Amino acid sequence: MKKSYRVAVVGATGAVGQVLLSILQERGFPVSELLLFASKRSQGKEIIWQEQLIPCRVLEPHCFNGVDFAFFDASDAVSKEWVPQAAQAGAWVIDNSATFRMHEDVLLLVPEVNGFLLHEKIQRFAQNAMHSKDRIVSGPNCSTVQMVLVLKVLEEFWGLKRVIVSTYQSTSGAGAEAVNELRQQTQDDLRGHSLTSHVFHYPIAFNCIPQIGEFQSNGYTSEECKMITESRKILRKSDLKITATAIRVPSILSHAESINVELEKSFDLSEIRKKFSEQEGILVLDDTSKNLYPMAIQARGQDAVYVGRIRRDESAENSLNLWVVSDNLRKGAALNAVQIGEEILSALSDLHGIV
Amino acid sequence: MKKSYRVAVVGATGAVGQVLLSILQERGFPVSELLLFASKRSQGKEIIWQEQLIPCRVLEPHCFNGVDFAFFDASDAVSKEWVPQAAQAGAWVIDNSATFRMHEDVLLLVPEVNGFLLHEKIQRFAQNAMHSKDRIVSGPNCSTVQMVLVLKVLEEFWGLKRVIVSTYQSTSGAGAEAVNELRQQTQDDLRGHSLTSHVFHYPIAFNCIPQIGEFQSNGYTSEECKMITESRKILRKSDLKITATAIRVPSILSHAESINVELEKSFDLSEIRKKFSEQEGILVLDDTSKNLYPMAIQARGQDAVYVGRIRRDESAENSLNLWVVSDNLRKGAALNAVQIGEEILSALSDLHGIV
Repeated sequence: MKKSYRVAVVGATGAVGQVLLSILQERGFPVSELLLFASKRSQGKEIIWQEQLIPCRVLEPHCFNGVDFAFFDASDAVSKEWVPQAAQAGAWVIDNSATFRMHEDVLLLVPEVNGFLLHEKIQRFAQNAMHSKDRIVSGPNCSTVQMVLVLKVLEEFWGLKRVIVSTYQSTSGAGAEAVNELRQQTQDDLRGHSLTSHVFHYPIAFNCIPQIGEFQSNGYTSEECKMITESRKILRKSDLKITATAIRVPSILSHAESINVELEKSFDLSEIRKKFSEQEGILVLDDTSKNLYPMAIQARGQDAVYVGRIRRDESAENSLNLWVVSDNLRKGAALNAVQIGEEILSALSDLHGIV
Repeated sequence: MKKSYRVAVVGATGAVGQVLLSILQERGFPVSELLLFASKRSQGKEIIWQEQLIPCRVLEPHCFNGVDFAFFDASDAVSKEWVPQAAQAGAWVIDNSATFRMHEDVLLLVPEVNGFLLHEKIQRFAQNAMHSKDRIVSGPNCSTVQMVLVLKVLEEFWGLKRVIVSTYQSTSGAGAEAVNELRQQTQDDLRGHSLTSHVFHYPIAFNCIPQIGEFQSNGYTSEECKMITESRKILRKSDLKITATAIRVPSILSHAESINVELEKSFDLSEIRKKFSEQEGILVLDDTSKNLYPMAIQARGQDAVYVGRIRRDESAENSLNLWVVSDNLRKGAALNAVQIGEEILSALSDLHGIV
């Protein structure tokens, strides 16, 4: 088994790509060579990584030859075209787009929740030929990641009966241009100028927009549908009763979620807090006597999913309300992707270098 | 019966007070003389109303002598001390503070929902001596008003089984200084300066704060408790199953609410839209094919409670999700108070001038 790897990052100049590059460095992902891909607009742009200047390339046939790991943080369309080619070229592909998430054969991973599936799959394939598509692993939608990590704990110890979530999603979830749009509009608004919108359908400055993604025939947005279908897949509970309302708010970094959960079994709040505290990846911040609860202030730039405002909901049996905040670019996207990469390394290592 | 009245506004320089003054004018409330009260800080300040310069006074003993209607838009403490004195002096008092809302003998009114109670009460008192406290009428919390107007329709035609609400509340709900704080912090943040908070516990610029009011022993904030207890009183359904999560978002004007409702009876979405459309005070804005839904853009400065994103929630029987937006200073406070005043006038008029 190799000790270090040729790693490609597709979408290297984007909001998630930039965070991913710093996380690869932070966590010491074993990179022997780093290849950066971006859109034509960024061609020739050089990015500093570990004191090296690395030029951005555009995707082209055979560009993944010899690549061991390819992280995709680009559009659904880019992933649709290039992810299969990267996998075909022999790379493990960690794709953060929606393109392959719901494919039956593709794992949709939050390592702390269902990382073991990757180990099982790699073990299984040790005895067989692996198809290229088996090297594609999807990372979930950002608003799904932070929710399922919390739901996983509740499902494990009390059983989930029903979930109702309303989100408070930051503009960075729509990319770097969206953040610029919020800043520009906010500045314009404070100066009394009129606002122009390009990324969002309506001005987001000092406003809330109840649409993320496009509307489906059932009246839900694509974002809301993702939260529903992806959670069911990750939690391996295809009949999970869950509904979602996804709202864009004028914040920059970190998504928040108001989650109402009905459980199968009765619970003590103290036990819920304890189980959350024991879950890798979760940090409980919940002391109302000191006005302590999760906000962007704590979450941004941090790895943890913060949980607070944990309280019993008396409107139904065995129910509770939660407030969950996480850095959408880190655990919601880049960090989760790197963790998937680490999980692949660990699973391959368990096989003593096979594959 | 008099044709026009001496009207006092307490808290005349505040965010709600200012809107109330313009609504009194807009709707032609029959004012013969207007008395403005504000804190010591504003003493001597003059406000233009209907081309008159009216000085702000401070509250003092006997200041309500001869006043017919007193609108209170000040703090709970001010209302606690002065509302009874105004009522004692013979005025009808419309109080927007929380102080008397839950008193058994005090009506808590959203005229479109339970205005008839006022008529009943005034009819009843026509035969009896009226105590001064019977002339106190409370207006609900802003986040309650817009919600109960919507819930009223659902309760009337389908029966409410359970309500789960998450709010997106603007800074104006915390007063004019809170709006200034948001603007100042936003400006500071855009310039890379550090932020200071006085009104809110934490910076609100580009952030969401999961605390409105103070925490109670059950883990809920006072705002969340108000939404629960006030809704039960207004809908006259003391056993209504309802839970709330109240969040401050960095918007300026208009509160939004993500409301999940479980109904007793089965429904057609088209019928729900129809009944909402027929309800006075509600405006349905719900065309996902054109990306139309309620936002501050539509609601601010408007009287209506806007309802959109009306869709079936498949996670429970007879359930639906809604997105409700309203100008919190108008229907959430000032407009509702003036409507209560009009309702009192109408009820008195029904009595042919008695009382």
